[in-house]
Amino acid sequence: MVRPVALIFDVFGTLVDWRTSIARQVAAAFAAKGKSVDATGFADLWRAQYDPSMDPIRSGSRAYIALDHLHLESLATVLTAYKATSFFTASEQRDLARAWERLDPWPDSAAALLSLRQVALLAPCSNGSIALISRLSRHAAFQWDCVLGAQIAHNYKPHPSVYLASCAALGLPPEQVMMVACHNSDLAAAAALGLQTGFFPRGREHGPNQQFDLAARGDWTIVARDLADLSAILTKAP
Amino acid sequence: MVRPVALIFDVFGTLVDWRTSIARQVAAAFAAKGKSVDATGFADLWRAQYDPSMDPIRSGSRAYIALDHLHLESLATVLTAYKATSFFTASEQRDLARAWERLDPWPDSAAALLSLRQVALLAPCSNGSIALISRLSRHAAFQWDCVLGAQIAHNYKPHPSVYLASCAALGLPPEQVMMVACHNSDLAAAAALGLQTGFFPRGREHGPNQQFDLAARGDWTIVARDLADLSAILTKAP
Repeated sequence: MVRPVALIFDVFGTLVDWRTSIARQVAAAFAAKGKSVDATGFADLWRAQYDPSMDPIRSGSRAYIALDHLHLESLATVLTAYKATSFFTASEQRDLARAWERLDPWPDSAAALLSLRQVALLAPCSNGSIALISRLSRHAAFQWDCVLGAQIAHNYKPHPSVYLASCAALGLPPEQVMMVACHNSDLAAAAALGLQTGFFPRGREHGPNQQFDLAARGDWTIVARDLADLSAILTKAP
Repeated sequence: MVRPVALIFDVFGTLVDWRTSIARQVAAAFAAKGKSVDATGFADLWRAQYDPSMDPIRSGSRAYIALDHLHLESLATVLTAYKATSFFTASEQRDLARAWERLDPWPDSAAALLSLRQVALLAPCSNGSIALISRLSRHAAFQWDCVLGAQIAHNYKPHPSVYLASCAALGLPPEQVMMVACHNSDLAAAAALGLQTGFFPRGREHGPNQQFDLAARGDWTIVARDLADLSAILTKAP
């Protein structure tokens, strides 16, 4: 391995704990209305809309629209399923959809990014919009060199254009960029385009019964125990 | 004035001293070849190519290409004028063109940005590419929430799309965003689109005989003595 000039990061799951963060905010929103809710189930159902909501854009049947809007559309679906649409005004639903800007980092994320920033350019390569990721990064104390990802490509991972546009925006060939993620599918898409790949597991992203992405399922450039381990490996690399 | 949610900054001139930084690097490049040069004149002639080089893109007669490439093209023009093309290999010319990634900040820039970051989202809205501005920001110790500007709009200031794409990428209406620049023309373009505007002069950007942009020439939201003054005004605003 030659140390990459830039590291681009998946965010949801890899750096932040979306599931408990969304459940916490959903529970608070329902409690404010005097209602109870299976908040974790709500979070899981909301996240279950995530991939399907991007598919029409990946396939070209819908023009690019930022994830913020998809989150709001998906929230409407989930509220319907929970028979809870009438609990919230349109304005309250827009605020709840922005819960994705207030996801808490995993405890090791901010420190590892700070350390990695000493050895490489760092940018998120997320499906989140620039607005979402900028605000999330403030909330989580993540510091980047720039914000890349879906919005600069007007498409969604794992569409190749997102990875390639991110490399191009850094002025770097793919082999000088490493995609870092706890999701094997994200790394498979990046590796196919010539990017380096860095994996470490987040075995509780989907809760205590998570069945997938518990280990590397590809020939990734780095397979680390955790984010701190990945940081140590990259810091020592020539 | 209601304090803007985000501040977007011009960079060349407003935050960094491109003229002496380029002259210094040009002098060093020529010295390394045992040649002498009017380095300040070279810097001025290079910068004189800047606006004309973007015009075909603004007018739509040329597809968007990042400023890095325009800088390289302009360098070729200036080297020809100086009868110095043969002094440098193609690779050396590419490295010299990247002198724009190594512009020194004005002495007050980094501290003011650090302070302003406590009260607003901050992003550059420059004609520089994401790659250029990210590296320049490392060199100058500028810390942003994201990098906006020409590359996300695939056009160049003062084309309206650059300001509007930057506001949209922040998820904010123009009236909640302030364009900050030492150039009246930049602010005029932003004001026409409904952005707030913040001006302070950089009377030595073009050297000791600068004749323009010495004072505000518009009804800007803030007219400050200098960047520290602008920071103080914004920090006190409700």
